Amino acid sequence: MADAQRKLANGKDFIDFQTDPSRYRHWKLTVDGDVATLAMDVDEKGGLYEGYELKLNSYDLGVDIELADALARLRFEHPNVKVVLLRSAKDRVFCAGANIRMLAGSEHPHKVNFCKFTNETRNSMEDASEHSGQKFVTVVNGTAAGGGYELALATDHIMLIDDGSTAVSLPEVPLLAVLPGTGGLTRVVDKRMVRRDHADVFCTIEEGIKGRRAVQWRLVDEVVPPSKLEERVKARAAELAAASPRKGPAEGVKLAPIARTFRADGVDYSHVKLDIDGAQRLATIIVRAPEAAPPASAAEAVKQGAQFWPLLAARELDDAILHLRNNAYELGTILFKTEGAPATVRAYDEFLEANKADWFTHEVRHYWKRVLKRIDVTSRTLVSVIEPGSCFVGTLAELAFASDRSYMLMGQLQGDNRPVAKIELTKLNFGAYPMSHGLTRLNARFLAEPKKVDELEAEIGREFEADEAESAGLVTFGLDDIDWADEMRVFMEERTSFSPDALTGLEANLRFAGPETMESKIFARLTAWQNWIFQRPNAVGPEGALSKFGTGERPAYDMRRV
Amino acid sequence: MADAQRKLANGKDFIDFQTDPSRYRHWKLTVDGDVATLAMDVDEKGGLYEGYELKLNSYDLGVDIELADALARLRFEHPNVKVVLLRSAKDRVFCAGANIRMLAGSEHPHKVNFCKFTNETRNSMEDASEHSGQKFVTVVNGTAAGGGYELALATDHIMLIDDGSTAVSLPEVPLLAVLPGTGGLTRVVDKRMVRRDHADVFCTIEEGIKGRRAVQWRLVDEVVPPSKLEERVKARAAELAAASPRKGPAEGVKLAPIARTFRADGVDYSHVKLDIDGAQRLATIIVRAPEAAPPASAAEAVKQGAQFWPLLAARELDDAILHLRNNAYELGTILFKTEGAPATVRAYDEFLEANKADWFTHEVRHYWKRVLKRIDVTSRTLVSVIEPGSCFVGTLAELAFASDRSYMLMGQLQGDNRPVAKIELTKLNFGAYPMSHGLTRLNARFLAEPKKVDELEAEIGREFEADEAESAGLVTFGLDDIDWADEMRVFMEERTSFSPDALTGLEANLRFAGPETMESKIFARLTAWQNWIFQRPNAVGPEGALSKFGTGERPAYDMRRV
Repeated sequence: MADAQRKLANGKDFIDFQTDPSRYRHWKLTVDGDVATLAMDVDEKGGLYEGYELKLNSYDLGVDIELADALARLRFEHPNVKVVLLRSAKDRVFCAGANIRMLAGSEHPHKVNFCKFTNETRNSMEDASEHSGQKFVTVVNGTAAGGGYELALATDHIMLIDDGSTAVSLPEVPLLAVLPGTGGLTRVVDKRMVRRDHADVFCTIEEGIKGRRAVQWRLVDEVVPPSKLEERVKARAAELAAASPRKGPAEGVKLAPIARTFRADGVDYSHVKLDIDGAQRLATIIVRAPEAAPPASAAEAVKQGAQFWPLLAARELDDAILHLRNNAYELGTILFKTEGAPATVRAYDEFLEANKADWFTHEVRHYWKRVLKRIDVTSRTLVSVIEPGSCFVGTLAELAFASDRSYMLMGQLQGDNRPVAKIELTKLNFGAYPMSHGLTRLNARFLAEPKKVDELEAEIGREFEADEAESAGLVTFGLDDIDWADEMRVFMEERTSFSPDALTGLEANLRFAGPETMESKIFARLTAWQNWIFQRPNAVGPEGALSKFGTGERPAYDMRRV
Repeated sequence: MADAQRKLANGKDFIDFQTDPSRYRHWKLTVDGDVATLAMDVDEKGGLYEGYELKLNSYDLGVDIELADALARLRFEHPNVKVVLLRSAKDRVFCAGANIRMLAGSEHPHKVNFCKFTNETRNSMEDASEHSGQKFVTVVNGTAAGGGYELALATDHIMLIDDGSTAVSLPEVPLLAVLPGTGGLTRVVDKRMVRRDHADVFCTIEEGIKGRRAVQWRLVDEVVPPSKLEERVKARAAELAAASPRKGPAEGVKLAPIARTFRADGVDYSHVKLDIDGAQRLATIIVRAPEAAPPASAAEAVKQGAQFWPLLAARELDDAILHLRNNAYELGTILFKTEGAPATVRAYDEFLEANKADWFTHEVRHYWKRVLKRIDVTSRTLVSVIEPGSCFVGTLAELAFASDRSYMLMGQLQGDNRPVAKIELTKLNFGAYPMSHGLTRLNARFLAEPKKVDELEAEIGREFEADEAESAGLVTFGLDDIDWADEMRVFMEERTSFSPDALTGLEANLRFAGPETMESKIFARLTAWQNWIFQRPNAVGPEGALSKFGTGERPAYDMRRV
């Protein structure tokens, strides 16, 4: 599992995306009133895999898993934190970026999925800023190179200590023959709007840019003399806190560990079940409706905390997706199913809509949005199978709209008396969960007929049976019981016979019809080029830059331009 | 040169992008009043390289060079043609797409540059439709597979003969383990707005989709019974002609052959000079200002015809760029220089602005736009060198704005008394030449300060010397004579030491800050993924689908998802 060439450290046999602050080895999260400090203090010996040391606050996926966890906790456990200071706990180095030896020794799938996750983590910082008023300030107190500067780029305000040596840099091209792969190029020109020729210069200077020019070129927001740093950081934090609309209570919701049981062929969560069929290279994810009705009030939901079904199901689903993505490359298709009472799911959606002004409900909605976005960029064929007993309603119906195709059974199968499958829309299908390119899944689905989305909104609450769902364009195929098993089998056999790479490229293109945003450009233009480069001999071949890094030998390049 | 593994057919030693209808082997262009027919009739024996036959109207770069030529002539030589029927001259096959044996035997750089050119050609069809009212109708009379259907997708109206077998298809994924690489995926979901799940089904069915479903799924515009085909085609052509705003005269401007002299180290054109420095892997393109003032009127310009300087210079520049792109992969950097009297270039720009309502001037402006767009997606480092005696004015200043960076000399070099370098803007810098993502180069340049563009527009006609140009943000560096030679040398040495692939990825990301359009998505999301796949062993390895195609053996895939 995971990375065939590499051994996970500490005898682990899979990459675990669950952690909590008591187990952090690389980050320290402290809170002081409405300002939190997230200090990076990477443990050199704490690499996810064997074979490299995480020197100079360089990172690997393990470091980023902790960061992602801390960011989620800042949303839920610290509703009163308005400003997060991203700092280094080490002297004279902020962060040296992704660990080069880790990269050099990783197989292609790990490199790509590592970058995907780190991208999602950085996007979640911008999401917190935009939607939860949690503003991020980076304090650069030494080298911020490559991924280190990319981390800063994801924040709202970058302060650079003016000590004559501290610089920001994206040295990937000159040093490693790869791209800054965690949004750096896109954020430099699209977010910070650095002039493209300045960006060209910046990205080809190994040592980076410091001082006044870094401000003039918009690479950072301010340079600060060392003697004034702490005072200025305090002032900035106070300013941003004062301007933040965030107004949660002092007490948040603890993200208690999610309960999981690993089986040989899957994982059982409380409301999610992951089944793995290795022979068919197939994963099935079943999301189960809650047993009970939603709480009576937002305050009651807060009391349920991590057990509040929408939050619990989202966290479990997120974990299942990440597990598949990073620990089971060989599974090419994910089947989404749901189980349970549609009425209960509808009631929860109504709760999420009625209480959206409440801080906790607000965070839960945005959490679901991020999980669904993660599904959108997951490079596996996504199929929704809508059968009797299912509850593809509102939020859960988004799984069907996120899928590359969906099959819905008309009526029942012999010997199965579960209720006939129906699809139902709720208010949450119409804006709560935009994709990374800014459209809702229904808007992207009905690009040709935008009016259809309005018509569907007028039909919130209608129960679409298979034939109606097909006519309305909500599912790909409604099938009767005679065709059902055969059609599904033929599709699965065919799909798994195709080249996984071609499917990845196909799906990445068809899923994102319409506009692009900075966020979607990162997964499209930037990531696709980075993935290309991650395969070029100039980067990863025996004479390539990643292989030669640190050996004292120069890489040998094929000098032809493609 | 060209493709090391392959031999060009007929003893040619480079790929020539110049042709004319008398030399076409694959297309027949006929004109009947305001309707032209462009009939594809590929000569099996007319492949650009040795080693494959172009069966079933399949194509290679040579076929596409003729198509691009025909499309340019339709704009200039046939100003009264309002509708172009794209048809096959063969029975029961429209076009089988890019030739698979050609693809299987091509090296990576050829595959990528082949797709780039074919993309540009298809974009130029949409450009003719949008900007010159020249509407395209495809008549599909048999297999339109892969690139064949992609050709149809670039047109305004797709008619499918309803003969029980004629279908459109994109069989690349199931058959070849690559993507439809000529805009197909993007146009299916973005232009024709086929629902993404329908698109997923369509792109995984080898045999494609025919008849009524093809219309229902928006893949084609109409199906027509064979008996009614000619009548219906006529009717459609008449409708579209009636609705077209195109109103050129019967007589157009002949695109006479451009005069070229090939040297061992470059090519001489009348107003463009290409110098090749193989040792430095450097190409220098010098564009020369016209000697004489612009003609007195639009009618006089038409009389000058292909000798009208803006048209001539654009055609020569286009040829030089294409020559470098496809025949000299090893040249990593293109230096743009200009020579001549700034006042004359300014006068031509004023002419192009004053006469933009004239059909010929209109076409010339759009031709320049397309050449500049081609430069934007050229995967070489682009540098403008702005020296005494140069004329970076208006249209020619776009070369500097298209460059990854620009160097401008302050004052003069010792012993050189040519006039000090100045940059000058004209009206044409403010809208005539949008990039593929919809912004002008100045808008993209000043994304952070949109007001600056307005301020610059108020300064049309001002001569910016180097220090002023640098302050205004029009050039990257203004340098004095002491630093000039050294800075340039160091830059060149450094640049050519970097990995060509990393530079390609870097430049493709930094050049397109801001929005994306369907056109730019084709070069970004789609092409980047295709390039990735074009390197995957599943497609191109010894056991990959392209290698195994036609052998009767099945490809063996690495089944891991990346």
